[in-house]
Amino acid sequence: MEQTIRVAQEIAERVIRRAGKVAKDHFDQITCAEEKGIFGDVVTEVDHEAERIICDEISIRFPDHEIHSEERGHNGQKSDWLWMIDPLDGTNNFAIGLPIFSVSITLMYRSEPVLGVIYEPLVDRLFVASRGNGASCNLNPMKVQKKEQIHKGTIGWIQGHQVQNEEKAVRLRQHLDVCFKRMMRLWAPTLQWCMLAKGDTDGIVLYNSEGDDLYSGILMVKEAGAIVMDFEGIPFEGMNSEPYLIACHPDHRDYFLNVVREGMN
Amino acid sequence: MEQTIRVAQEIAERVIRRAGKVAKDHFDQITCAEEKGIFGDVVTEVDHEAERIICDEISIRFPDHEIHSEERGHNGQKSDWLWMIDPLDGTNNFAIGLPIFSVSITLMYRSEPVLGVIYEPLVDRLFVASRGNGASCNLNPMKVQKKEQIHKGTIGWIQGHQVQNEEKAVRLRQHLDVCFKRMMRLWAPTLQWCMLAKGDTDGIVLYNSEGDDLYSGILMVKEAGAIVMDFEGIPFEGMNSEPYLIACHPDHRDYFLNVVREGMN
Repeated sequence: MEQTIRVAQEIAERVIRRAGKVAKDHFDQITCAEEKGIFGDVVTEVDHEAERIICDEISIRFPDHEIHSEERGHNGQKSDWLWMIDPLDGTNNFAIGLPIFSVSITLMYRSEPVLGVIYEPLVDRLFVASRGNGASCNLNPMKVQKKEQIHKGTIGWIQGHQVQNEEKAVRLRQHLDVCFKRMMRLWAPTLQWCMLAKGDTDGIVLYNSEGDDLYSGILMVKEAGAIVMDFEGIPFEGMNSEPYLIACHPDHRDYFLNVVREGMN
Repeated sequence: MEQTIRVAQEIAERVIRRAGKVAKDHFDQITCAEEKGIFGDVVTEVDHEAERIICDEISIRFPDHEIHSEERGHNGQKSDWLWMIDPLDGTNNFAIGLPIFSVSITLMYRSEPVLGVIYEPLVDRLFVASRGNGASCNLNPMKVQKKEQIHKGTIGWIQGHQVQNEEKAVRLRQHLDVCFKRMMRLWAPTLQWCMLAKGDTDGIVLYNSEGDDLYSGILMVKEAGAIVMDFEGIPFEGMNSEPYLIACHPDHRDYFLNVVREGMN
């Protein structure tokens, strides 16, 4: 098993750079507003091409593994090993020329993430986490940070597509917004997880948002020392199609549980 | 006067690229969380060096002009011409390695912006607006866009340093947050103005936030066809040390005025 993960990591790191290059090469090519109509096509093209590069390589190297990717769906295999591919996280940012997007590859073993690789092509940052081996950014180890005064920290908010105006979500979001100095909503969830892992932000609250991009991020912060739990404080493991999660430094556990509870009332 | 602006534009475009290169070269050098302590110094160093490059050049070419810049303050001249320099807009983003920052240069004539130049070094985007001559991104003309269904649009929120938890500001921010599909808060105001000008977002509400970065952005969206007004609908001109502003496509004027009024009650 460890051997499989090691080989998987090598392949994922190589192929994610190739996929990322496709995205980088197509970024912000259209600067004239009148031409916006073709934006959708450009994004789809990038999505498909990046996905093809990744899935083809994985299929060749691990023909028995399950693969799930955003556009292609499931490859029909049945295995303990499942690859989850998000060829372009932050699609809307990409489309409007905002340089916040990534490519994400996760390898799960029996529904637990064992390898997460996230690549930010525009700034050439490669984030890697493998279970039990820590997390790194361009080979530098990452560690979540403890904040002296957590209410002066930055919290990342991640929400599912359908919850923007859901009453409870709005209430929680608005409460959190005033419980921290800064709320970050990047619409590129993988990068929010990476920022928490890197010690650049102080926590994440995720409201009903699953996706092919989720588990690489969760592994990233766990391997960087964060706790990941549901709104009741129960450690999160495995997969969940409707997750409600908190991630933070272990010492901030109570603060986060409290503000989330307050915001849910 | 037109001749002065033309020469000023040439100089601003050249010097802003040099200053931007300093920022780009120092971006995200520190990826290891343990080393974060020196972050502040890095940022200050970049600020100062970029400011020095810009102010020195302007002082030599226009020795009689007033110059106001973030770190150095005012140069002591008295003139109809005032340069406003923000050597690093999005300092906090820069510090945590989030690739959303810019350099901004504004030239005012008798308290009205006549030239705005904003540069995003990481993606090499140069935004230029000069009064009466339109706005461009890398030489491509920019135009604010009319949205079919404005409530499905993206609104940019810009707030002053001290208003995060001010009751009225919170209420307005939260109201706007549910009146649009997406609220963007980038903590790099110049780039929010550029995105509106470029047609990538649909409006800006600014709550009591002045600064050396403000007027280049205002000129940018005006020259791209936006209206800029206060919360009563009165067109904004000149300077204001405590501005409350709305900027949008002229056809969305009433919608914006209404949602802001609702949010202020």
